[in-house]
Formats: sequence, C-alpha cells, structure tokens
Amino acid sequence: MGTVLRAEHGKRAGFRESAKDIVRFCGLGGLEEIGRNMSFFEYKDEIVIFDAGLEFAGEENPGVDYIIPNTTYLEQNKHKIRGIVVTHAHYDHIGAIPHIMEKLGNPTIYTTPLAREIIKKRQTDYPNTPPLDIEIVKNRDVIKVSDNFTLEFFNIIHSIPDSISIMLKTPVGNFVYATDVKVEYDAKGVEYGLDEFRRVGEQGIHGLFLESTNAEVPGKSLSSELIMDNIEDIFLKTKGRMVIAMFASMLTRVGEVITLAEKHGKKIAFSGLSMKTNVQIAQNLGYIKIKPGTIIQLADIHKYKDDQIVILSTGAQGESNASLMKIATGENRSFQTRPGDTIMFSSSIIPGNERAVQTLKDSLARQGAHIYHSKNSDIYSSGHATADELKAIIKAVKPKYYVPIHGYYFMRSTNALLAQECGVLKENTIVADNGLVVEFSKTGFQVDFDHQLPAHYVMVDGLGVGDVGEIVMRDRKMLAEEGMVVIVATLDKKTGTVIKSPDIVSRGFIYLKENVNIVEDMRKKIKGILAQMPAHKEVEMDYLKGLIRDQIGQFLYTKTKRRPMILPVIIYV
Amino acid sequence: MGTVLRAEHGKRAGFRESAKDIVRFCGLGGLEEIGRNMSFFEYKDEIVIFDAGLEFAGEENPGVDYIIPNTTYLEQNKHKIRGIVVTHAHYDHIGAIPHIMEKLGNPTIYTTPLAREIIKKRQTDYPNTPPLDIEIVKNRDVIKVSDNFTLEFFNIIHSIPDSISIMLKTPVGNFVYATDVKVEYDAKGVEYGLDEFRRVGEQGIHGLFLESTNAEVPGKSLSSELIMDNIEDIFLKTKGRMVIAMFASMLTRVGEVITLAEKHGKKIAFSGLSMKTNVQIAQNLGYIKIKPGTIIQLADIHKYKDDQIVILSTGAQGESNASLMKIATGENRSFQTRPGDTIMFSSSIIPGNERAVQTLKDSLARQGAHIYHSKNSDIYSSGHATADELKAIIKAVKPKYYVPIHGYYFMRSTNALLAQECGVLKENTIVADNGLVVEFSKTGFQVDFDHQLPAHYVMVDGLGVGDVGEIVMRDRKMLAEEGMVVIVATLDKKTGTVIKSPDIVSRGFIYLKENVNIVEDMRKKIKGILAQMPAHKEVEMDYLKGLIRDQIGQFLYTKTKRRPMILPVIIYV
Repeated sequence: MGTVLRAEHGKRAGFRESAKDIVRFCGLGGLEEIGRNMSFFEYKDEIVIFDAGLEFAGEENPGVDYIIPNTTYLEQNKHKIRGIVVTHAHYDHIGAIPHIMEKLGNPTIYTTPLAREIIKKRQTDYPNTPPLDIEIVKNRDVIKVSDNFTLEFFNIIHSIPDSISIMLKTPVGNFVYATDVKVEYDAKGVEYGLDEFRRVGEQGIHGLFLESTNAEVPGKSLSSELIMDNIEDIFLKTKGRMVIAMFASMLTRVGEVITLAEKHGKKIAFSGLSMKTNVQIAQNLGYIKIKPGTIIQLADIHKYKDDQIVILSTGAQGESNASLMKIATGENRSFQTRPGDTIMFSSSIIPGNERAVQTLKDSLARQGAHIYHSKNSDIYSSGHATADELKAIIKAVKPKYYVPIHGYYFMRSTNALLAQECGVLKENTIVADNGLVVEFSKTGFQVDFDHQLPAHYVMVDGLGVGDVGEIVMRDRKMLAEEGMVVIVATLDKKTGTVIKSPDIVSRGFIYLKENVNIVEDMRKKIKGILAQMPAHKEVEMDYLKGLIRDQIGQFLYTKTKRRPMILPVIIYV
Repeated sequence: MGTVLRAEHGKRAGFRESAKDIVRFCGLGGLEEIGRNMSFFEYKDEIVIFDAGLEFAGEENPGVDYIIPNTTYLEQNKHKIRGIVVTHAHYDHIGAIPHIMEKLGNPTIYTTPLAREIIKKRQTDYPNTPPLDIEIVKNRDVIKVSDNFTLEFFNIIHSIPDSISIMLKTPVGNFVYATDVKVEYDAKGVEYGLDEFRRVGEQGIHGLFLESTNAEVPGKSLSSELIMDNIEDIFLKTKGRMVIAMFASMLTRVGEVITLAEKHGKKIAFSGLSMKTNVQIAQNLGYIKIKPGTIIQLADIHKYKDDQIVILSTGAQGESNASLMKIATGENRSFQTRPGDTIMFSSSIIPGNERAVQTLKDSLARQGAHIYHSKNSDIYSSGHATADELKAIIKAVKPKYYVPIHGYYFMRSTNALLAQECGVLKENTIVADNGLVVEFSKTGFQVDFDHQLPAHYVMVDGLGVGDVGEIVMRDRKMLAEEGMVVIVATLDKKTGTVIKSPDIVSRGFIYLKENVNIVEDMRKKIKGILAQMPAHKEVEMDYLKGLIRDQIGQFLYTKTKRRPMILPVIIYV
C-alpha cells in the first residue's frame, strides 16, 4: 500500500492546446464523499450527465434530511444538456432527481426499466414536479444523444438488478463510466461479470471512470454463492420463525432469498413498506420470480407453522421508524419476537449507526431471538468491487487514462494505485475533486486546479432545498453541545432604566428549575450591566447585546465550564 | 451462534434461603455499555469495589464530557466499603475516581504501580479533591481487606502493562474478576497468559466474572508477534520519516515500537502530551526500557536523516484537538507532512469516529503521505479476548457460575454461550444488567429482577456532575435537529394590547435575514393571536404561550416541514 499525490498524477500529460477537440469531465458530487453521485461530460455545446444522487447527512449536519449535488453550472448551461443517464435505482444515484430536473430543463433520462419504475414511484412523493421524460435502455443499446455523444449501454453486476455501465463515444475517444459495480465468482472461484467490460475494452478506451467505495478493501469479496449457502445452512437448522433484515434496495439478494425460501417450502411475508413496494416493482418487471402462494400477509403468519415463516424486513440499520425496530419494541401488531425466533441481519453497518444497531440487537436478544449478523456469520457482501475486483475490471477495459470516482480522497488515491498496478501510467491516473474539470484531448489531459465549478453542499431539510447553510449548521451544532440562554431585558425608552426584572429562558444548558442560584446571580449580573448604561438615552443596541453576551458568557463559564449560546433581546418601551 | 434468554439463565438455581452466607454482586456500570466499568461485592457489612471508570458520551448525549457510574447505593453504604481494586490504568476503569472518591469516604485503592502513577497524574487536574490512599499490589499478593474478603491478585495480559485480575476469597467461595484481558500466542500459535488463571482455577472457583468486549468476534486475535513483524516490515521498506499514531494508553505496543526503532537505529520523538507523559511514567517504573539517546525532541528532528525519524503520536481517532490532526492541518510547528512520509494508524476506529478518521487520512494523503491502517495492513490488534481466547480462560478457571461483564447485552449473552460451550451449565450462566443484584450462596444463586439499585447515567459536563439530566439532553437533541425560534411579545399590563411589534430571534432553523417573508408572516400571525385575547386583563401566561407555540409551530411546519423549538416570552409592562 501507499498513496498517491495529486501532483504525482500530473495535472497535465501529453495535452496539446492546438487540439480543439476537448471533452471536459466534471464530478459534481461523489468525489469527496460516499453518496450524492453526479458527473457530467461536455463537448462544445453538448452535455451529458451521469446520475443525480443524494447523500444521507451525518452528525456534522444535524437535522438535515439529505444532501444533493450542486447543479449551478448545469442550470446556467441547461441549453447544452442532451440527457441524463441513470446507472441504477439506488438513492445515491437517483435521489436528487425530484429536486433538480425542472431546474435543468427536464432533459431526457436514459435508464433501465427497474430504475425507471423506482424513479417514477419516488416522484409521486413530489406531486408538484413536472412529469419526467424517461427513455428505457437495455444491454448493448447504442443511442446517439447529440452530434458528438453516443452512449453504448452494457449490463454489469451490482446489488440491484438492471444496473448498467456506459461507453461514451466522443470525437476525442471512448470513455467508460462504471459505477456501482462488482465482480462475482462461481463455486470454483472463477470470476464472471467481466465479459462486457472486455468487449468494450476491445474497442479501445481512452478513459475509464470507476468507483472507489471498496478500493481500500484488499482481495476479493465473498461470492454470492457462498453467502446464499450460508443463509441456506441457517434455513436448515432453524426450527422457529425467521426474520431476515436487509436494505429493500438490495433487490438481487432479496430475490435470491425468496427463491431459497420456496425451495425449503417456506412462505414469505413482508414487513416494511419499501420492501413490499420494491419487490412488487421487481416482480412486475420479471426481475424477481415468485411462485403463486409464496407471499403471505404478515397478519396471516399465525395460520402457518413456525418453520414455514420467513419475514423480509427493512430496518437492519437500527432506524428508529423502520420495521425491525417496531418488531423489537413490540409495536408491530402482527409479529412479536419470542424465544425460538431467528433474526438475520444480512447487511453491513453504515458508519454512525453502530449504537442504534447494537440497541436493536440487544433488544431482540433480550426477547429470546437467535441473532445472526455479518460479524458472526458470512451472510453479507457489499455490492462494490474490492481491490482485486477493481483490478480485474481495469485489466478488462485497458484504458489509457484512469479516473477513480465515488469515494473519499484516500479511497480514490488507493484506487489510482490499483490502476498503476494494472499498467496504467502513473501520470495518467487522475484523482480530481468535486468541481474540478478534467479536459481530455486525443493526446492527453489537463486539470486546472485553480478553477472549480460550484460543488458545495446543497442541503435538503423539509421543504427547503439549499436554504440551510453554514450559519444554520454551525448554530445547530453549538446548540447541541451546550444549549442556549435567552435574556430579555426590558428598558424604558426615555430614561433607559430597567422596567422589570430580566426574563431568562434556557434550553439544553442546565435545568434552571434546579439551579435557582445561578439564575438569581445571572439576573443580578444583568441588572448590574444595565445600571452602568448612561441614563436618558437609548444605548446602541449591538453594543449592549455584546456586553451582555460577553459578561454573562464569562460568568456562566466560570460557574459551569460550559459555553451556552447567549441570545440577548433588548426591548425599549 | 445463537443467543441467550434472560429466563434461560434461571433467575435462581440451587439457592437455599437457609444459607445466611450470601455474597451479593452488582455491576453499577459496564453491563449495558462499553465503558464506565464499576462493580462491587457485598457480604454482610463489607463491600469491596472493582474499578471506577468513565464512558465517553456518544451523539445521543451531545456536549457531555463523559458518563460515570451511579454510586448512590455505595454512598449510602460507605461505612461498609473496605477498598476499591483498580485492575489497570485505562480511563474506562479509573476515570470516575476524581468524581466519586470523596463521596465514598475516600477508601483505600488497591492497584499496581503503573495504575497508581496514572491515577495520581490525572488527580492533579482536580486540585480540590482530597489526597488518595493508594496501596500497591503485585502478582500473587494476598490481602485480607476485611473479616470476610481476601483479595489475591495475579497478572494478566492486556494492552497496558501492569494489568491485574483478582481472586476474591469469601465465606461462600472464591470468585475471579477478570477484566480487561487477552490471551497471546507465540510464533507457533501456542497460547500463553493462561498460567495464572490455571493456578487460581485449581483452588476451586465458585464464580467467574469475565469481560465481553470481543465475545462476538470469532476465533483468536492476531498475535502481537505477527503485528510487530508487520510493523517491522514497514520499518524496513520505509525510506522517509514515519509517524505511528496510536492511543497513548496502549503502552505495551508503544514500548514494543520503541524497542523496534532502536533495533533499526531510529530515533523516537513524541507528539502529543499524553503520549510523552505516559511513556515517561512507564519508563520511570521500568515497564518501558529506552536506551540513552533514543528519545529526541520533536523540534530537533531536522537534525536527523529522514529514515532515522519515528514520531509516536496521539490522535489516531481523528480527534480535532489531538496531535495527528494538528500535523494534518499544518498547525504543528516542528513537523509538516510532505511526500515520502509514512503514517501508520496502529488502532481500530471507535464507532462514531469513522468520518473524522476518514477526513484525517484524506488530508494526510493529499499532502503525499503513505498511509497504513488496520484495514489495509495487520498492524493492530485489540487488548480484549476474542471468542476462542475467552473460552481458553473459562477452561483454565473452570468456574461453577459464570457472569459475563463489560459489554452490551448481546455481547454478554454471546459470552454466556461461550461458557456453556466450555461446560458451564446453562442455568449457571448469569446475564444481569447494571443495578441488578446477584446473590450467591454456597449452593446456588438468585437474581431479583424486580429490584434494581440506582444505575442510571451520571453525566459530567464541565464542572457539573449529574446536573445534566434527561430534559437538558432532550432539548439539546431537539435544538440540534431543527433549531429554535424565540418570540418576544410585549403587552400593556392594563389594556392587554400589543405595545410593539413582536421580536423574533431564531438560531439553527432558517437564516432569517434570507427569509424575510416568513418572518413577516410570522409577525402578522402573532399579532393576530394577541389581538384575539380579551382586552383589559392579563391573560393566563401559560395559555397564551401554548397558543403561540401551537399556532406558530403549525404555521412554520406548513411553510417549511420543520419543527423548530418555539419559545414564547410574554412581557407585560
């Protein structure tokens, strides 16, 4: 292992200005995070976009629903947009669609049938958005979207069916955009899922854009076959009811589990609306095949024997309002955990959710459930290629230039090293951040590190998109840490004297009812400050507020070693 | 794998009331969490305590410094306390000491020399606490602390030297209290660190109390030898400067790294005060041996060749004020990262710190550092026994009763299953929560699940211990999610009419300056509410406040789909 320097990539390699044929690439999201994936390619007055995802907000952004890519540049150039390609139906690739399509002039979306249905389903939550124009594509479809851009789609393997990657043909050369993708292995360890990459590779690839999510994970991932064998072992030894918790979006695994249940004569009930909806969509399109009679209502499980029952549930991340948590807290009317039940978490834990998942497991274990999870059993693997799988893809595509996408800097720079191990020249690996434009000519590329397109966070909070900025976030964090104290001082406009004892309201600081002394001392202190003000004139408001903020702040810090936010309100009557 | 029911353990097994000889055990912390470890044993009017640790607060408790065990019961019975045993010098075992010792009547602390020095060092941060009475113990010391309690100490392996476990001899039988502990393996995979457990096991053990931190981790942990070999490999291939980041409390590994550096002719500089202090303490006591000339000042590193420099740094968790972060941000005056540097994270990531560590790695990688961490290299192992190691200890001790301690419920119930695999009867494994009392007689045990000693969180925030309660925490979380709006309405005492336009202050909600319309609408709405109040009398304050809260809350929710905390202040003048 090691790492890669921005400088080591060469901001410029083999680039000749004379070449007017320049394809510009820019990532607007996904290059400094996991999520809100969105990139575009530009050639003269043509733009084609790839994905428009969301990122779930972490504790750095409390209260925010999610974060979407910044589309300022695209809005300013919407006349150039020739289409948006959506690679698959996960929210980190489709989640921004309801918020941006209108601003971009509602361009055509090119995607697969499953993604189309899931995008349309989500769109129903935003009734005021104009109808989308979605064009279906399938494996090996070739679509000329503009004079200079031709898209050739090809199927790849990910954790949801109907995922595609794209070869973008341009006057400069062919580019492959591959995300999210993994390689699979059969029982003998022989890899598959690379044929299409080899096929496009044979056409000569100028640049490969490949995801980095698991670039730091050495080796190969566990094969689906192995995981399904392990799940089958658990099926065989379980005599009671089973709950299998996983993301409703992991539709490939969901389908495999349903088939396995049928093989063992079990019935499937769904718990969690998104699970039910997603399976229905996938079933309608033929991606999941279910025999008549397999699916039963959760309310009907009492009509079956315990060992016939498999419940597919959402909520494996310990989400407080999801199905599995409701089972754990006894709020689910049809299913209460009891000794003999088995609960399987076929999932990894998203960083930040550890405590919630621990609480959930604890609660289920206390009720007597047997618990299997990815730490004690091999029943989960990620949908993202690990180091060896990434290398297999790079070797199949054989690109001249390599741009790791999707992941934090260190993941992407690690990914760049993998490409170098596969023979891509060091100076031809390009680790560019969100908003940086990479210009490709036939002979080389250059990156202008000094000019970035707008790429900062756009936060979605309730109905607001982008109205929660840094100031609001900073305040939320400060309020969370130490709480706040509001001080209302009422003064006589004419005399400047205090009319009534200051009102003090506090939240999240200390419980005032139990700290009468501090409150009294604070009142005295405030009166003292106000008494020093010159009489018979209105004091400059900001000056007085500043004085109260500083002196009361200092007083409270001395008393408590805490720094609550202090909000003085001065009222002249 | 599977799990364990509280009921399956039997709340009562072989217990005869006639027996007046009863030893009571209770965990006050550490049984439903990782951290704030503290337990006690009671026999008639004698109490002996084990450890007094802290737990670092997670995002569920914003702004809190840390959480300590609830000592209410011990305070009420302080006349019974015959001593506190401290098993080792980690903060989750010693951190509560400055806050509780006085309340407990300052009983004698029995501990090892290293723990004594680290406790004393920390005590200097609390100058107003009375001096501690610490008695040094060493391997195989036997101390009769009261008529009925005799302590026999024995050395065990953990990630800090001078860690002990205890055999507690009582009229009811011998108990072994073992935490934190691991088993080691030599190059051939032969385990060591079990001899003392076997020795005490031969004396007949009634009950074993053993930690559960890694009970869910199958197999054995990586041996120290392997890890040091891997670190040596990195030493050999590194030509530039090296920074090794780890907890300053992992003193065993710190000592090994220093020895390895000496072997390769390298110099050691410290970055981070706690690293420097801890090494000094360990060196003074002879636990870390350092040759003269090995240690150099960080400010002097420029005097040496790059490949001679090894910097031991704190901050591997991405803590914002720790040494490694300052190196990453360029704030360290003596050391700035540059291409060719190697940075090793010999640490795991504590859940919740993932993003901070990612940011740190990204920043160092951007500056050209080569990065090794536990995900891409085997350079870290935990100080806590994994499943196979726990089983080896249980087999060595051969207890009749088994009480898993230290860890969340699911970890402890998994640990109980391990004991059952080692031949402990199922009904003799006891998974009891904080505050539950387990009564042992010579013939059995019983747990009264209906009576619990106070064990709820005591939060330390600034100077306050226990003054931050549920209400304050709930408010902090609410403020963090949606912010707040303060509404000050000034009314005429006599007429009830509005004297001036309502003042509105908001933080963490929306940026008011950019949302003038909402503010204006809110003002109108408030005036409307106030206008409806009957004239010429003071309206009941709480009623009016409730009205404003509800109606403005509803108004803002409709406008923004957010629910800020609304704080009305009514002023009659």
